[in-house]
Amino acid sequence: MQSSTTSYALHELCRRVGGNIRGSGDVLIKRVANLQEAEAGDIAFLKGDKYKKHLANTRASAVILTEDAAEYCPVSALVVTNPYLIYARVAEILYPVPLTVPGVHEQASVEVGATIHASASVGAFVFIAASAELGENVVVGPGCVIGDGCKIGAGSRLIANVTLQKNVILGKRCTIHPGAVLGSDGFGNAQESGVWYKVPQLGGVVVGDDVEIGANTTVDRGALSDTVIENGVKLDNLIHIAHNVRIGANTAIAAHVAMAGSTTIGERCTIGGAAALAGHIDIANDVHITGFAMVTKSIREPGVYSSGMPAQRNDEWHHSVIRVRQLEKLMERVKRLEQQLNIEQKGPHLG
Amino acid sequence: MQSSTTSYALHELCRRVGGNIRGSGDVLIKRVANLQEAEAGDIAFLKGDKYKKHLANTRASAVILTEDAAEYCPVSALVVTNPYLIYARVAEILYPVPLTVPGVHEQASVEVGATIHASASVGAFVFIAASAELGENVVVGPGCVIGDGCKIGAGSRLIANVTLQKNVILGKRCTIHPGAVLGSDGFGNAQESGVWYKVPQLGGVVVGDDVEIGANTTVDRGALSDTVIENGVKLDNLIHIAHNVRIGANTAIAAHVAMAGSTTIGERCTIGGAAALAGHIDIANDVHITGFAMVTKSIREPGVYSSGMPAQRNDEWHHSVIRVRQLEKLMERVKRLEQQLNIEQKGPHLG
Amino acid sequence: MQSSTTSYALHELCRRVGGNIRGSGDVLIKRVANLQEAEAGDIAFLKGDKYKKHLANTRASAVILTEDAAEYCPVSALVVTNPYLIYARVAEILYPVPLTVPGVHEQASVEVGATIHASASVGAFVFIAASAELGENVVVGPGCVIGDGCKIGAGSRLIANVTLQKNVILGKRCTIHPGAVLGSDGFGNAQESGVWYKVPQLGGVVVGDDVEIGANTTVDRGALSDTVIENGVKLDNLIHIAHNVRIGANTAIAAHVAMAGSTTIGERCTIGGAAALAGHIDIANDVHITGFAMVTKSIREPGVYSSGMPAQRNDEWHHSVIRVRQLEKLMERVKRLEQQLNIEQKGPHLG
Repeated sequence: MQSSTTSYALHELCRRVGGNIRGSGDVLIKRVANLQEAEAGDIAFLKGDKYKKHLANTRASAVILTEDAAEYCPVSALVVTNPYLIYARVAEILYPVPLTVPGVHEQASVEVGATIHASASVGAFVFIAASAELGENVVVGPGCVIGDGCKIGAGSRLIANVTLQKNVILGKRCTIHPGAVLGSDGFGNAQESGVWYKVPQLGGVVVGDDVEIGANTTVDRGALSDTVIENGVKLDNLIHIAHNVRIGANTAIAAHVAMAGSTTIGERCTIGGAAALAGHIDIANDVHITGFAMVTKSIREPGVYSSGMPAQRNDEWHHSVIRVRQLEKLMERVKRLEQQLNIEQKGPHLG
Repeated sequence: MQSSTTSYALHELCRRVGGNIRGSGDVLIKRVANLQEAEAGDIAFLKGDKYKKHLANTRASAVILTEDAAEYCPVSALVVTNPYLIYARVAEILYPVPLTVPGVHEQASVEVGATIHASASVGAFVFIAASAELGENVVVGPGCVIGDGCKIGAGSRLIANVTLQKNVILGKRCTIHPGAVLGSDGFGNAQESGVWYKVPQLGGVVVGDDVEIGANTTVDRGALSDTVIENGVKLDNLIHIAHNVRIGANTAIAAHVAMAGSTTIGERCTIGGAAALAGHIDIANDVHITGFAMVTKSIREPGVYSSGMPAQRNDEWHHSVIRVRQLEKLMERVKRLEQQLNIEQKGPHLG
Repeated sequence: MQSSTTSYALHELCRRVGGNIRGSGDVLIKRVANLQEAEAGDIAFLKGDKYKKHLANTRASAVILTEDAAEYCPVSALVVTNPYLIYARVAEILYPVPLTVPGVHEQASVEVGATIHASASVGAFVFIAASAELGENVVVGPGCVIGDGCKIGAGSRLIANVTLQKNVILGKRCTIHPGAVLGSDGFGNAQESGVWYKVPQLGGVVVGDDVEIGANTTVDRGALSDTVIENGVKLDNLIHIAHNVRIGANTAIAAHVAMAGSTTIGERCTIGGAAALAGHIDIANDVHITGFAMVTKSIREPGVYSSGMPAQRNDEWHHSVIRVRQLEKLMERVKRLEQQLNIEQKGPHLG
């Protein structure tokens, strides 16, 4: 971690992000760091119990933490209700996003007709199609391709080598990481006599405000209507969002999730890494799907949902696989025992 | 959905795509739409029973459907045996792929010696190596890289930011979506004393005609012989095809499938999203593997194959995991009961 | 497979790669090939028993194999202890990596201040930020983006369309395949009132020497400290490495693996394709995780670890899923039987 170019007194940071100071507010802060690696001039944060053991010995100049942890803090404390959030805000102050110079790089290629706000920044080797529109303060990094019918809202940033293929409408303040592809054709094929025939994909992708889309993630355009990603959605890397999916506001999805066509996800959901969701299902608001889960049906109730067998030693796993495959026979054996003992089964028929 | 720039009478469409008209053939069609969203001037289609409820109230000017649904259609009908296919053909007529201007963009980089057909179109920031060949009407979109020994057959399209690294032979009328990488090195490493030593990857990738390859999908070149994708194969996004895999004609594979090296897939197979296939196995023709399945052995017979536990409520899932791990002990308990009751087990030994 | 431009006598190859010749050392070798496809002028190799059946009928001019297989070899043999490794070295001699011309392509874009060694080669449409550094003999292929604070060690190669976003330090002799993204922001979000707030990602990525990173793989920069990939690590395609992961030296990871944040992997591990690892766990040295395994906890002991149910016929799979869900009830039935027979359970309580 590099130091910030500017130092801030703790009370100045407190004034800007909120909270209460315990100890001296005059300590100077010029870097963020982990509790255990921090040195003089650093501010650290304490989130959860796991790292609490590092608090007593920290060499940080200040720590962001909650009220109940404050008494154990050997240095200045910034006492808040949500330390991780306040840490994020402090980090933003210490490490502001570098200003980009407005204007179009001389090695970019902009087709006649494209609308680019004077404050926007377009990098080297960016291609922008004639019908594209870039709003105020938009930043398009090197190697991006902005295709027909794409519009980028104010303050959004495409980092590098991003492709917006066709009919992609991005809201405000979105961040799209390198290699992401939005607006590629959905996977639609009609079959006749064993041969696939491509079904034209004619919809677009509509992305709300404050959305983040990770590196090499793909979001296909809709078949007829649009694929929709609502405000505040956060997508990690290497996610696949198929055509006509709709993701509700403030849902967060971890890396490597695969989501098939026309599925809808509610608001404030979380989906763990490498989970897979079938097509044409509906997930309610406030549903949390754990990593590597296989979701084949709609989920109507908020809550936590899971599947998958955690890894075991290879020999134990082999046994488990065999035992599961013998379950049918085991059921029969138990039934026979019950018959011999004249036990009447209650409840649903299991045999 | 935008309207087509041209309107067509239903009988004109029928003349071009086949089928029989029920009701007026004079209605003018200028857009495709879903049954429930369609308005005057739109043509919709009915596929399967799920959307049948929307037929009675559709405001479309015409609907493409099968004979048995025709009597319930309140508007003009185009009666066909495969509505989804005929819809695709109608959509192609209403929304033709825009013509691309032949020629090489002035901001492309073509090495001396490359062969580019006069009708081909090469976009901005495309790099083409000296030994590459582009056939008739090939379209290479912005940001693509065409490396040594790559040949692109007539009518194929690379949308944008595609990389054909080395020795990739593409057939005719293929479509390669943004971010896809073909011809990257296979993952071959020899080990000595705990250190990996890279094994040179010397083969290529051979792709047939009418193949579609999705966004950010990777297809590695073979180690010695080639990786082969036969005619009519459709690959969705973020798929991994390892070195020396062979995929049979007209097989379709959904997003996020991982396929290890030297595995062969038959013709007319389908593989659901996020499935994983081990290396060095063979899958017969007409095998259908459902999403998220884990395929560790060859499959010799046509049919549908599956694995994976669908997601449950998190507490129920925890129980399932524990119960499966106790199966060994449960088997023993049942065996003891049987011994006590002097039950002789029949069939394969399970204990 | 093309032939090499130069032929080598077998004894010449033997002199350079080691081993003992059995039969004539004068045969001329100009190509590598599989045992079953080899012709005169080819050298093949025999690894494991699977391909032994092809040895007797090979038409290769020479075969690389182990002592115990030598007596069955009908042609000249190069007898070694590790045929696959020696094959790799022979292939390197026959197919040397083409020399790249030093210098910066006239269609590259290098910001003032960037440090590029005179022997480095920078291709078309490469963007290099002002603070980047490229060492001796570095090769950066077309379309790559090298961002702020990135340093590339001597002899490393970025094939094409690679993005090093920010603060990525690459060691020597690394190979980064097309579409890979290193140094993209980690997935860090703080929540307040149901809304996600981005946590600035301030660390970097540190990659050791002799590391290979596959096509479209993503390696995120650390949140505070760095994401670390040690010497000799081999990563296949479409892998996700989250922020603050550490991967130990000489570990190899197959395609489509997803690894969540702050997890550490030991040295000399292997991870099979499409496996997923939870965050904040530790995997010991010499652990081997098989493909599609779901790793939710730390693994402290070397060994092989697995999970996942292999695919079955779809109807059998349906049965398995139902039977597993009935396990709770089956346990109860067995317990009732035991009670009726007054059997005392020993060992851990299972009911």
